[in-house]
Amino acid sequence: MTLRLHYAPDNASLCIRLALEAGGFAYETALVDRRRHGHKAPAYLALNPNGLIPVLETPQGALFETGAILLWLADQRPGQMFPVPDAPDRGPALTWLFWMANTLHPTLRTCFYPHLYGSDPKDIRANALARLAAQLDLVEAAPQAYASTLARCYLAPLLRWAVIYAEAEPALDLARWPALRAMAAAFETTPAALAAARAEGLGPAPFSDPRLPNPPEGSAV
Amino acid sequence: MTLRLHYAPDNASLCIRLALEAGGFAYETALVDRRRHGHKAPAYLALNPNGLIPVLETPQGALFETGAILLWLADQRPGQMFPVPDAPDRGPALTWLFWMANTLHPTLRTCFYPHLYGSDPKDIRANALARLAAQLDLVEAAPQAYASTLARCYLAPLLRWAVIYAEAEPALDLARWPALRAMAAAFETTPAALAAARAEGLGPAPFSDPRLPNPPEGSAV
Repeated sequence: MTLRLHYAPDNASLCIRLALEAGGFAYETALVDRRRHGHKAPAYLALNPNGLIPVLETPQGALFETGAILLWLADQRPGQMFPVPDAPDRGPALTWLFWMANTLHPTLRTCFYPHLYGSDPKDIRANALARLAAQLDLVEAAPQAYASTLARCYLAPLLRWAVIYAEAEPALDLARWPALRAMAAAFETTPAALAAARAEGLGPAPFSDPRLPNPPEGSAV
Repeated sequence: MTLRLHYAPDNASLCIRLALEAGGFAYETALVDRRRHGHKAPAYLALNPNGLIPVLETPQGALFETGAILLWLADQRPGQMFPVPDAPDRGPALTWLFWMANTLHPTLRTCFYPHLYGSDPKDIRANALARLAAQLDLVEAAPQAYASTLARCYLAPLLRWAVIYAEAEPALDLARWPALRAMAAAFETTPAALAAARAEGLGPAPFSDPRLPNPPEGSAV
């Protein structure tokens, strides 16, 4: 069975596409039409009852949760994208992968969709933006957080989205986080990043100098 | 080097203690004095810059993030607590472990500490409580979510905290989620759960009929 990624351009599925490309996986894609709320349709909810993008269909069933899919893909390529279970750097790598999944990513999500968390979206976004900056300070100081290819497949898109979708005024400037920007600049020249940027219309410097996408199909929002 | 768990009673460190017990690990504990904000002190922040409990000191350094530590412990006991990387149920198990870490657990945290997320804590908690119930409905319908020992070490405490700390009025009644309550009732009779309940003063039915703890040392809040 071929792996099948349910995606929308410049959505969390981008992290999975990057890992699929980095790992040299054969895969196909299925566009989720966000404009028609395709991720809330019954057929999609049968794959992911949370109604969130991405889903990766695999021989083990439909997997969801960005961090879980990333780690599962790394399992299929031992030693290539992430420390293997008996590697001495496995623990810190897991620590920061979960941190991205349960701290940085949800904080960003709160910036994007503050109305889902309470009745004063402006207040909730302002609070989340303050936490976001503090969290970026923290990962800036922790190079082990993005030592693996897999971690960069997660973190580089999170940086991109922080700049272009978090609605900070003025927009966040990655110059404040030079180590992260340097990682993003190096990462975007890799074949995996180039392929993903082309497929989703992410522009010429999609992670170090992010701009709104111009996807060949579908809609990011 | 012995594993060293930095814990406070009935905090997220409980999940780690349960897994340490279930895996038969040798470990020692270091109480974090929450009453004096020990988790915000410089010495603790040097272990976990997020200032959150737990930390597990290991030969690989100080690990944090509950889900990451759990998975790292499972790595040390291949096939005993969680599907190994090439097992056919690894993907769904990872999916739900991450879901607990980035969906259910953060929702609960928002119920406990709504003031951290905006300036109208009452409104933010009410919103989180609604999401919490929907999330419990979802996991109730997904027995694969808690098929592994490791997942139960995470989910059983989350259920406990939902009942006693989420400040729902009236308190959540696990009778609404019979499959989850049955899991909790079975889990609390295991040697690992009995040992953890004794160590942290969790009472006689700590997961299926949770009550406020009476810990022999330290404070839960």
